[in-house]
This record gives sequence, structure tokens and C-alpha cells, in this order.
Amino acid sequence: MRNIRLVIEYDGTNYMGWQTQKKNLKTIQGTIEKVLREILQEKVNIIGSGRTDRGVHALGQVANFKTKSSILTSKLQQALNSLLPPDIVIKKAEDVGLEFHARFTVRSKIYRYTILNSSTPRAISRDYYIYLKYPLDVVKMQKEAKCLLGRHNFKSFQAADRAWRKKDRKSETNIKMLNISKKDDFIYIDIEATGFLYNMVRNIVGTLIEVGRGKFPGGRVKAILEKRDRTYAGPTAAAKGLCLVQVKY
Amino acid sequence: MRNIRLVIEYDGTNYMGWQTQKKNLKTIQGTIEKVLREILQEKVNIIGSGRTDRGVHALGQVANFKTKSSILTSKLQQALNSLLPPDIVIKKAEDVGLEFHARFTVRSKIYRYTILNSSTPRAISRDYYIYLKYPLDVVKMQKEAKCLLGRHNFKSFQAADRAWRKKDRKSETNIKMLNISKKDDFIYIDIEATGFLYNMVRNIVGTLIEVGRGKFPGGRVKAILEKRDRTYAGPTAAAKGLCLVQVKY
Repeated sequence: MRNIRLVIEYDGTNYMGWQTQKKNLKTIQGTIEKVLREILQEKVNIIGSGRTDRGVHALGQVANFKTKSSILTSKLQQALNSLLPPDIVIKKAEDVGLEFHARFTVRSKIYRYTILNSSTPRAISRDYYIYLKYPLDVVKMQKEAKCLLGRHNFKSFQAADRAWRKKDRKSETNIKMLNISKKDDFIYIDIEATGFLYNMVRNIVGTLIEVGRGKFPGGRVKAILEKRDRTYAGPTAAAKGLCLVQVKY
Repeated sequence: MRNIRLVIEYDGTNYMGWQTQKKNLKTIQGTIEKVLREILQEKVNIIGSGRTDRGVHALGQVANFKTKSSILTSKLQQALNSLLPPDIVIKKAEDVGLEFHARFTVRSKIYRYTILNSSTPRAISRDYYIYLKYPLDVVKMQKEAKCLLGRHNFKSFQAADRAWRKKDRKSETNIKMLNISKKDDFIYIDIEATGFLYNMVRNIVGTLIEVGRGKFPGGRVKAILEKRDRTYAGPTAAAKGLCLVQVKY
């Protein structure tokens, strides 16, 4: 038995997210599994590092699967890329030890959220950012975001309807990096954490947008964090601005 | 009577090019004219700096139109951007002298052609470049492209079926800049000319690709130019890699 790790880039625009659903919805995982079955002529279940939502993109999603096939990984990658639709690309395929599990062995993940912040929108590449007309105060956002660094209970930034799930009950995780930068008209919010709660990045971004536009005063983010209650944080930022950049093991 | 100039960005993916066709096809010009009529409540004909083909994009297309309306240009821009589909954006709207004509008074235009040149394709933003797997020799392309600079008869790079047209008969134009650069896995071919013949950029790019992949030896581009015969040049590069960056007046 072999264990093969894939690094995957995808444009999530036309998918119902990563995970195979019960209904017959088009997902990234389902699309890759279908093509793998064609190539390997066996049933394959791939394990992703985690889900991404409908419309969320990835530059470096990681997944693994076990197979009895003796196909060369270079050939497998080639076959996958020629059979997959152009919005899913296998950037790497390699043999790894049988103990590797794309979800359980994650050390941290990096997400990037992109905002176009200018007086006029843009027509090009508009599936990969959200557009905000009102000017955001990046320095204020950077200052307010600092309190989120480190290990905390992030329940205030977790989708309210997931708090009952057993695995989500703890709501504790560690943000190792939270970097807000501006280049030309684009604002980038990069977050690295050891784990992400459901909708966590999009809820943090939605909250920081409220800070940047002056709706939340200084100190509010810290207060929200301490409340451990989703209703205090800002709205969930739209999916299309979000991209899973890297998974570290 | 007023004369209003628009600077327009568009994603050409879902359009049959710039120019309004006789049949009921979706074009950039037709889409803007329809919205202008709604806003101004009068029939408006806009004049573009020139056509762009189906699938070609623009960061800075320029057009003008005459109107009796007294609407503020800032209000007009706002109204256009809220009524136009998101793949067409008006970046600027301003009053200009009545003598301004978006096509006749062009001094030069700048186009950019983008090639992704790497061992694996990409999933993100793939409507804005072409993907070539075989490695291109950029230094060789740069060297061979030099002979195209300046005023020449570019009939070899003009769509063969357009040579009979009166206005295209001369086939002479002046390439003021031809710059080939590489950044990460992307190759950019930037061309500025006082005028462009039909398919000229795409035929030059198709020819330079043959150079870069080693199919055309040194000196071939000069020989093709001198032939004044389309059959000697390389194939027409795909539309989606092309973008009209700027029109100068």
C-alpha cells in the first residue's frame, strides 16, 4: 500500500467547496476522486487538510490518499492535470510515509484574504477579492488585530451554528501570524494559525473591516474576543476573497 | 453639445469583442451604449479607440460620445458602474473638447500579452494568460524581436483576410516599444505602436513563441518581416492572453 500526497491549487468559484457532499453537488474533493478512480481503476478516498467553503480558493491545499497502484507520481500528476477541469491543478504529487494524514498531522495553515479598496471597482480577476469603496484605515486595523495573536478562545469568531459540534466545542486555537499589508489598491490580510474554527478567517476579516471603516472604536476587537459570543463580532466577509495559501506539517 | 471621454476596463472573456455587431451578439460597446441610453434617455453612439477581439481584455480602452445631457461626469460614472455588469468598469469619465475623437486622434496604444511558462499550469486567473509548458528562451526572443522596432510594413503579421481592406492596404505602422520580460513563471510581451493591424500583436506573439521554443532560428523574424506575407509568420496566439493597457493621445 502506498500513501500519496497531493498539493492542489484551485479556483473555487464554480464549486460547492472542498468536501464531498451527500447530495450530488460539484465539489473539489469529489471532482479529484472521480478522476483518480478513472486513472487508478480503484475506489479512492482522499483526505484533505480541511474543508474550504463554497467560492473559497486555494494555492496550496494538501490531501493524501492510499492506493495499491504502482503508477509513477510524475505520471499520476500528468494524468490528473490532463483529465481535471482547468480550475483544479495538481502542483505536486509525491510518495509519503503511511503515517502521513493530511488533516491530523497539520502544524499550521496560512490563509490570505484580499480586499480591493479604491474609489472605482475593477473588471479583471474580480473572483479573487472583495471590493470595498469606503477607505479602510490599515494602520488602525493593524493595531486592533494585535490582540488576536497567540492562543485564545476564538468562539466570538466562530460560526454560531457550529459551536454545538463536539470537535468545535473548545474553540481554542493559536494565531501565529496576522499580517495586514497594502499594495496599490489592494489590502491583504494574512493569517497563520495552528487550526481554524468554522468561518474564523472570514469573521475576523469582517470585524477588521468594521475597524478600518471606523465603525468599531479602538479596543473593541479585544472586547469582542473576551465576550466569547459570535453576536459581538462583525459580519462574515464574502468567500471569494479568501484563499488557502499553504498547509504546514 | 458635449463630448465625453471614458476610460474603460473590461474582462473580455464573456463578450464577442468590443464592436457592436449586426447580429444580436453581446459586445462591450453594445453593453455600454445600452446602459448609456437608459441613463441619458437618448440614443448614444460611442466611438472606441479601436476594436478588441472576442476574449481580449482591456485595462485602459478609451471611447467618446456626444450628448446633450447636462449630467455631471462624476454622477454619470457612478450610474454607469452601478448599472453595468461587473466585467465592465468605467475608470474615468470626463468632458473633452468637441474635436476629440477616440479613434482618429490616437497617438499610440500599448498592449500586453501574458504567457504562463512553467512545468505545471495554474488554476487561478487563468482567463488572463495562455499556458505554455515547453520552456521559452526569453533572451533569444528579445534578440529576435529587435528588428520589429520602428516603422515597417507589417503585412506578414496582419490577418491575411484583412489585406484587401482599403484602410489596411498599406500595412505600415511604427512599433515604438517592444519589451519582453519575465517575472516568476510569467513572460510579458509589451508592445507600443502608433497603430495596430488586425491580429498584429497576436501574430507577433505567435511568431516569438516559435523563436522561444527553438522552432525558428536566429534571423528568421527579420526574414518573415521582409517577406510581407502572412504565411511565413507563426500562428496567431490565443486572444485571452491579450490586454489593451493604454491608449495615448
